[in-house]
Amino acid sequence: MSGHIEGRDGTDGGFRGYRDTAQVDMPMAPPRPTGPVADRLESRPAPVPEPRMQTEQPAPIAGVQLSEGLATVRTVERHLDEILAAVPQPDPIELAVLDAQGLLCAEEVVSQRALPAFDQAALDGYAARADDVLGASLEAPVELAVVGESIPGAAATSSIGPGLVLKVAAGAMLPAGADVVVPAVWTDQASVRVAVYAGPPAGSYVRRTGDDVAPGDPAVQVGTPIGPAQISLLAAVGRERVLVRPRPRIAVLCAGTELVDVGTAPAPGQLVDVNSYALAAAARDAGAEAYRSGILPSDQRRLTEVLESQLLRSDLVLIAGTFASGGFDMVQEALAELGEMRFRQVTMHPGPAQGFGRLGRDHIPVICIPGEPVAALVAFEVFVRPAIRLMLGKRQLFRRTVQAIAGQPLMSPLGYRQYLHGTVMRHPDGGYVVEPVGDGTEALLARMARANCLIVIDEDVTEVAAGGLVTVMPLLLGG
Amino acid sequence: MSGHIEGRDGTDGGFRGYRDTAQVDMPMAPPRPTGPVADRLESRPAPVPEPRMQTEQPAPIAGVQLSEGLATVRTVERHLDEILAAVPQPDPIELAVLDAQGLLCAEEVVSQRALPAFDQAALDGYAARADDVLGASLEAPVELAVVGESIPGAAATSSIGPGLVLKVAAGAMLPAGADVVVPAVWTDQASVRVAVYAGPPAGSYVRRTGDDVAPGDPAVQVGTPIGPAQISLLAAVGRERVLVRPRPRIAVLCAGTELVDVGTAPAPGQLVDVNSYALAAAARDAGAEAYRSGILPSDQRRLTEVLESQLLRSDLVLIAGTFASGGFDMVQEALAELGEMRFRQVTMHPGPAQGFGRLGRDHIPVICIPGEPVAALVAFEVFVRPAIRLMLGKRQLFRRTVQAIAGQPLMSPLGYRQYLHGTVMRHPDGGYVVEPVGDGTEALLARMARANCLIVIDEDVTEVAAGGLVTVMPLLLGG
Repeated sequence: MSGHIEGRDGTDGGFRGYRDTAQVDMPMAPPRPTGPVADRLESRPAPVPEPRMQTEQPAPIAGVQLSEGLATVRTVERHLDEILAAVPQPDPIELAVLDAQGLLCAEEVVSQRALPAFDQAALDGYAARADDVLGASLEAPVELAVVGESIPGAAATSSIGPGLVLKVAAGAMLPAGADVVVPAVWTDQASVRVAVYAGPPAGSYVRRTGDDVAPGDPAVQVGTPIGPAQISLLAAVGRERVLVRPRPRIAVLCAGTELVDVGTAPAPGQLVDVNSYALAAAARDAGAEAYRSGILPSDQRRLTEVLESQLLRSDLVLIAGTFASGGFDMVQEALAELGEMRFRQVTMHPGPAQGFGRLGRDHIPVICIPGEPVAALVAFEVFVRPAIRLMLGKRQLFRRTVQAIAGQPLMSPLGYRQYLHGTVMRHPDGGYVVEPVGDGTEALLARMARANCLIVIDEDVTEVAAGGLVTVMPLLLGG
Repeated sequence: MSGHIEGRDGTDGGFRGYRDTAQVDMPMAPPRPTGPVADRLESRPAPVPEPRMQTEQPAPIAGVQLSEGLATVRTVERHLDEILAAVPQPDPIELAVLDAQGLLCAEEVVSQRALPAFDQAALDGYAARADDVLGASLEAPVELAVVGESIPGAAATSSIGPGLVLKVAAGAMLPAGADVVVPAVWTDQASVRVAVYAGPPAGSYVRRTGDDVAPGDPAVQVGTPIGPAQISLLAAVGRERVLVRPRPRIAVLCAGTELVDVGTAPAPGQLVDVNSYALAAAARDAGAEAYRSGILPSDQRRLTEVLESQLLRSDLVLIAGTFASGGFDMVQEALAELGEMRFRQVTMHPGPAQGFGRLGRDHIPVICIPGEPVAALVAFEVFVRPAIRLMLGKRQLFRRTVQAIAGQPLMSPLGYRQYLHGTVMRHPDGGYVVEPVGDGTEALLARMARANCLIVIDEDVTEVAAGGLVTVMPLLLGG
């Protein structure tokens, strides 16, 4: 099987793009795009270029590509919908409570116990009978006999009768007969006979059995994120383990004959594989258990073995760079043998070339994203992170966005949703202001590393004036 | 040595509080508090209580305790300042780039390489000489001979002379002699002789060697949080490992004769140890490597052994519940033998009883917090999380706070900074609205587990009216 499939899509080789700007090398002849987006991208004379400006975009290329009918065009939303609809929900697993941290509870945890487990003093004072202290005042204190002291951790052996009190520390069991705790500060704090200056009403400063949780009450509910407070509550009701939505296992692979691993000095024309590292980090950051498998082998048999093996042990497989030319169409062929894998032109920039399929015996979702590192991380944000969050059971799949004032004019290709790395800051007068990193054309690696957000410019917008509002997706980083 | 030290502080036992409301059992006689806070808390006749209201607080107790000179009083700020000033900064360590995720870079990573490493096409097109295509138009195309094709990953063997072009994919090496890439869409995309309809100026659509990073340029700087984009850049400049600020190792212990481990059904009066779980989770969430050591042994010799062993292997030791009475003063005595450990009444609610010291041969910071689980997590937020973030090298030690409209009246004891668990929501008209969980008096475990924020009410505020503004600290949870 040749790695060169140009005959199959009816072209003479055309422009086999390098990753994100690639044409779509698919065996099936895709339908000519229709609908409003396709209309806008319709074949037309190539535009005569303006002199190169800071903000210009290579968009016209996509227009001509599409006019040749090589690609199935779809919007970001539709591609995302396809992925989200196909992503499986891994079965819940039982984990030790500390290992459950950050995951969503997958069971209704019903307490078998009452919390508090016994009536107890809410603060330091004297356990008393409310009738005895009723009407006590500074001028007319009530004097009562102290029968002893109850400390936390000890079972209260005593009960108190009329005229008697038990000294109690906060958390100590209340003796039978007591229905109030007189705060220490409202007494003379004596140890044998205590003078009470005020009598709180019955029930005051008493934590009753089951005030917090009664037996049979739900303690932690399905879908609750398990944080320190939930772990505290789970331990309190006696749970050592809890059923949770597991972290999806994601294999991260990359394809490209030009790639060498980070330990190797690249020869001229070669590139270091940065994607398997960056995407594994991004997947872990999104909540997945990420397995960096690295560069796919260039031997056809070993390539298929690696893909099959990853499909067996993963909940999702992520492959960057499957649009690379240079003999590496064998990745697409190997994928096609494992199930239906569809590659599309998605109307986004950077990185319109995207793929999705469910492969192998278990129909494991496989997401193919561009190999250009900036486009790869953009595609991760747009398609992979929401899929991981869906597998985790999160309600909020998408990053919060804010509207920010553009600090400089921004250009965007018509018909494409543009994602630009930028830095967003709070504006002194309130709100946010955003600037693209670099000159707003190509977000190179060092520029991307300075960004703290993605600027999102919709398909029907070609220009945002300085001072105009633009949608910004802050990329949370520790710091 | 007895576990009972009442003789040493000159009291006859008084009210030995249960954890957060405790008096301070310290061998030294602390100075009588002075200054504005102490004045407000000065000895005075016990206030005559109002009938129990939803919002009342047990504050008067602290006033009387202080009037007896048992405690050193200090503000939250001062206690925090002492901790932050004493917390060490662990030495940087070298980690594999993927293990460095989420940590701060501790070195100036200078690139030995240029990025891009070679002049390359920024998009699919034809590498040409700008002079050759100058003036090309739709009406008067320029026709040039295609000498071949350059694909990514292959070294460009060719050079082009006048009248010649090389077909290039984005990312492919530029041949010698070419100074421009004509976008494919501005041509007829032919393979032998290509018609060019527009000539971009020299340098267009070319990524020059070092455009992103030049050799000697700093790639990742000291103090930068390492996320996916930084990992991408580090890999690109050939770094497999990077020097970072490590996660501090934190031992989490708890003290209390009333405590049993989660696997044991508590007898009457006993409590399940929830703190070692909840605090280990909170420490991990804050970025630490947390080691849950669990309940301190009640045997004096073994207790000291455990403490010494944890001091040897930790960057910080966290102990919950060291104010418990019931014979457990032995923890305080064991700590005192290992160095100077100071216990204070901090003007906060819940949990004024706080301790800090630097113990053992290496003066390891030891933070003692209340054992009551809600007070323990509040103390963690206020004192321990900022200390962990400082050890991580983070610039932003504290959680972001917002001003929110109080959905109901909130009461707070004078002179105390009050922390109430609450739920904060966005208000339909903008801004935030907050409600305390439960009735605003005691945040029990199940109530705390429903909260998504802490409401912070300053020392000099005793009441916030419904509709008034209050400071809210959102506690971020996944979800």
